[in-house]
Amino acid sequence: MRIVVLAGGIGGARFLRGLKSAVPDADITVIGNTGDDIHLFGLKVCPDLDTVMYTLGGGIHEEQGWGRAGETFAVKEELAAYGVGPEWFGLGDRDFATHIVRTQMISAGYPLSAVTEALCDRWKPGVRLLPMSDDRVETHVLIDDPEGEGGRRAVHFQEYWVRLRARVPARAIVPVGAEQAKPAPGVLEAIAAADVILFPPSNPVVSVGTILAVPGVREAVAGAAAPVVGLSPIVGDAPVRGMADKVLAAVGVESTAGAVARHYGADLLDGWLVDTVDAEQTAGVTAAGIRCRAVPLMMTDTEATARMAAEALALAEEVRA
Amino acid sequence: MRIVVLAGGIGGARFLRGLKSAVPDADITVIGNTGDDIHLFGLKVCPDLDTVMYTLGGGIHEEQGWGRAGETFAVKEELAAYGVGPEWFGLGDRDFATHIVRTQMISAGYPLSAVTEALCDRWKPGVRLLPMSDDRVETHVLIDDPEGEGGRRAVHFQEYWVRLRARVPARAIVPVGAEQAKPAPGVLEAIAAADVILFPPSNPVVSVGTILAVPGVREAVAGAAAPVVGLSPIVGDAPVRGMADKVLAAVGVESTAGAVARHYGADLLDGWLVDTVDAEQTAGVTAAGIRCRAVPLMMTDTEATARMAAEALALAEEVRA
Repeated sequence: MRIVVLAGGIGGARFLRGLKSAVPDADITVIGNTGDDIHLFGLKVCPDLDTVMYTLGGGIHEEQGWGRAGETFAVKEELAAYGVGPEWFGLGDRDFATHIVRTQMISAGYPLSAVTEALCDRWKPGVRLLPMSDDRVETHVLIDDPEGEGGRRAVHFQEYWVRLRARVPARAIVPVGAEQAKPAPGVLEAIAAADVILFPPSNPVVSVGTILAVPGVREAVAGAAAPVVGLSPIVGDAPVRGMADKVLAAVGVESTAGAVARHYGADLLDGWLVDTVDAEQTAGVTAAGIRCRAVPLMMTDTEATARMAAEALALAEEVRA
Repeated sequence: MRIVVLAGGIGGARFLRGLKSAVPDADITVIGNTGDDIHLFGLKVCPDLDTVMYTLGGGIHEEQGWGRAGETFAVKEELAAYGVGPEWFGLGDRDFATHIVRTQMISAGYPLSAVTEALCDRWKPGVRLLPMSDDRVETHVLIDDPEGEGGRRAVHFQEYWVRLRARVPARAIVPVGAEQAKPAPGVLEAIAAADVILFPPSNPVVSVGTILAVPGVREAVAGAAAPVVGLSPIVGDAPVRGMADKVLAAVGVESTAGAVARHYGADLLDGWLVDTVDAEQTAGVTAAGIRCRAVPLMMTDTEATARMAAEALALAEEVRA
């Protein structure tokens, strides 16, 4: 079974671990969000790709959900001693090595997709991990700023998410460069050849939404022969993890499991899973033309997540039948 | 008193610590060798400049003589786990931060001299540290290689020194790029304005020799109003430290305190200090037109080194008088 997953960071990575556990023999291609990539200290950092790679490769800091297990911070402390920041982005020593290798390869002319493949040679994540694009796409968030043009200012998504902790309202989400970006080699081919396409409970705006913003990807998913099934990142009207509600508000979408499904729309989604606490929302989703089922959606451990993945695959099977 | 010192790495740095201790109020400009600079992992590494900066700034690994005290090696281990080398060059985590800052600034368009000044803002070495040039100069060593052109092969100085431990004969030393290099801003001015110019017991070929190979520097030193006094890096026919004898052989110079003085020549040197064990060599040096004195030249601690520096300054005074 060929499964394609459009994944963001922590939520996507944890879902993938459950999916691998549910269907160990499946051929899984992950299309990873690179809109949150950032250049720090002259190095190219790909937080979502690395979170997937480290999580599936056994190197992740489990409690934190991102970064490396057993991490140390000598480089960061030294950079701070030089007065070189930002200090709000937590790059550890082990993590730095990944970014050094990546930056060196990119400087040598390799596209990000080839670099990601090379990094995965070490981590062996058990999936084929593709960046959504080899081109630079950078998600910016418009926030209020009395001194900015039109009372607004654009900040890098990481600055909004990590430094500001999404504490100020996001007025708009702009995937800068997306319009000019091309899907990375293999992305469209994987979507076209898929037996199932899954949207994990990743952020629908800044993770899955950014991947879909790369010209050709949304069309490929919408036109794919395979059923497309998503899992709600909102449980009981609040994000399971992260701050998805903040960026949903920016695109005028309510923070409910049903509203996220309708935001994706029936042209993309064939099936949608909501949590059992949101069972009353299934009718509205079904009315929008998306087959919907309520199942437990808390990724408390790999077993629970594997059951979620199995439910998603079962729903896909039901759609296909 | 304005003192200019042409310095290599460990020997130069330790000498400078003694010099600062001997004349704490002197205005010291260090012209540092950059011929052993190397690009590793996409980062610009300046071993000699850093050794001076760390030594005078209190960050050096004392026993080792290079690198940082309390160093850890997480980044290097991770790079090795990615299969990315070379593994023979010992970059620690703290040290990596220096190279990351430097590389980021150079990529942003700053010349090495400005970068070095910025790094020294943190370390406060108590001297003005100038790279010999902002241009790339890379010392290569020709070694025997049956498969190479003409039975020879060029390796980067660091590869010869660190990886090969200078165990194979050096057939020639080539400061690649030196002919096109310009002295860094301030270098010629400092030499012209100096009250004393010192050659510490650094390597006469690959450290001081490389600095002198930058067009204009040798001429400036030779034509300077200030007395030029050097200290022999060879004591009892062997290098005090390092493997100076290996590269002296490549330029056809005997490994003796007297031969090194004559290699520099009376057009450059006004005075030369040899160790007391080499007292018999003073006559030959004097005959070459260089004032010579035998004093203890082992840099066993800062006090002993300060006495050496004071002897050098006294000899300069004697030359001047």
